Amino acid sequence: MKQATTVLRIGATRRGLTEITGEIAKWMTGQSCKTGLLTVFCRHTSASLLINENAAPQVRTDLERFFDTLAPEDPSRYAHDDEGPDDMPAHLRTALTQVQLSIPVIEGRMALGTWQGVYLFEHRRRPHTREVVLHLLYD
Amino acid sequence: MKQATTVLRIGATRRGLTEITGEIAKWMTGQSCKTGLLTVFCRHTSASLLINENAAPQVRTDLERFFDTLAPEDPSRYAHDDEGPDDMPAHLRTALTQVQLSIPVIEGRMALGTWQGVYLFEHRRRPHTREVVLHLLYD
Amino acid sequence: MKQATTVLRIGATRRGLTEITGEIAKWMTGQSCKTGLLTVFCRHTSASLLINENAAPQVRTDLERFFDTLAPEDPSRYAHDDEGPDDMPAHLRTALTQVQLSIPVIEGRMALGTWQGVYLFEHRRRPHTREVVLHLLYD
Repeated sequence: MKQATTVLRIGATRRGLTEITGEIAKWMTGQSCKTGLLTVFCRHTSASLLINENAAPQVRTDLERFFDTLAPEDPSRYAHDDEGPDDMPAHLRTALTQVQLSIPVIEGRMALGTWQGVYLFEHRRRPHTREVVLHLLYD
Repeated sequence: MKQATTVLRIGATRRGLTEITGEIAKWMTGQSCKTGLLTVFCRHTSASLLINENAAPQVRTDLERFFDTLAPEDPSRYAHDDEGPDDMPAHLRTALTQVQLSIPVIEGRMALGTWQGVYLFEHRRRPHTREVVLHLLYD
Repeated sequence: MKQATTVLRIGATRRGLTEITGEIAKWMTGQSCKTGLLTVFCRHTSASLLINENAAPQVRTDLERFFDTLAPEDPSRYAHDDEGPDDMPAHLRTALTQVQLSIPVIEGRMALGTWQGVYLFEHRRRPHTREVVLHLLYD
């Protein structure tokens, strides 16, 4: 068994979902891994990870709107606003989604379903560069 | 260290929670694993995974009702409805729960707590057969 | 590759978030692990895990209040109340957060971001001692 790690730096130019399946797959290609376990870890508390539908763009829009409603920007609800009105909702949306995903690798590819894509979910209004750690166990 | 993988095909005959702890444990029995890490991965965007109480049946009913209310079938809320009114709520409920669980294996058994069961959470109204990947690392 | 496991017993003296990053890091120190994958697993259905901001205390208060509102204590909503009005909300809050986190280990340390802390999220009113399994894969 071997290990490989890297840190992807993802430019989240807009609030919402940015697909990163391609960036991950590209790094995987260089590892000659046949069977293994890939862990994706987001090093932030205002951005998170999500596996969701990668076909219809409306799914992304609906997802973003849903979380806007569930954890709204509404200063009257929160005590914490050190970085503005989108600060605390960003932490809540991170708590409700994932900071980590582990994906089995079979026959050299992530065992994602046909319609599954891996997304970085940026919760802040301002553009950010986000660090996503990849860790691969394989033989 | 060794690896083993398989794909379980789970018949979700009804919307809601179907316990799969037994199916997973059955496969584990054949692997002669003493210590390890088991990863369970759901290859869908309209069904997800959940670890929750496996004793009182009312917990399952309350959980299903809670998610029905949190992400309701309500076409006026969503742009995406390619597969009907239960399509987008299914993606939202998947986003709010898990597509992947990694469970330590100790003394040959998943280190679940006394009251923990692993469930497939089917979010569509129509019966589906769902693919759940199991990946085991052990020595 | 090697494996190490332990069970932390965390005294959750109050409802809400208790940081456990230090307890985990302390155990890690004894393992002489340079690169690896650490899995943290909570063996309960009324307490869960969360990675969130470890700086401003108001974030914890806001998070706790948010989940109080999202899955409230309200007997009229739930059929299940075997252990009182905080029983079913505890299962719902567990379902909405995590029971498991896997964190890459790089250069001997968990690859957490600057502002990330690992928390046990106790959902019951009464103090509990909670079991958190740690599993480390490393070489």
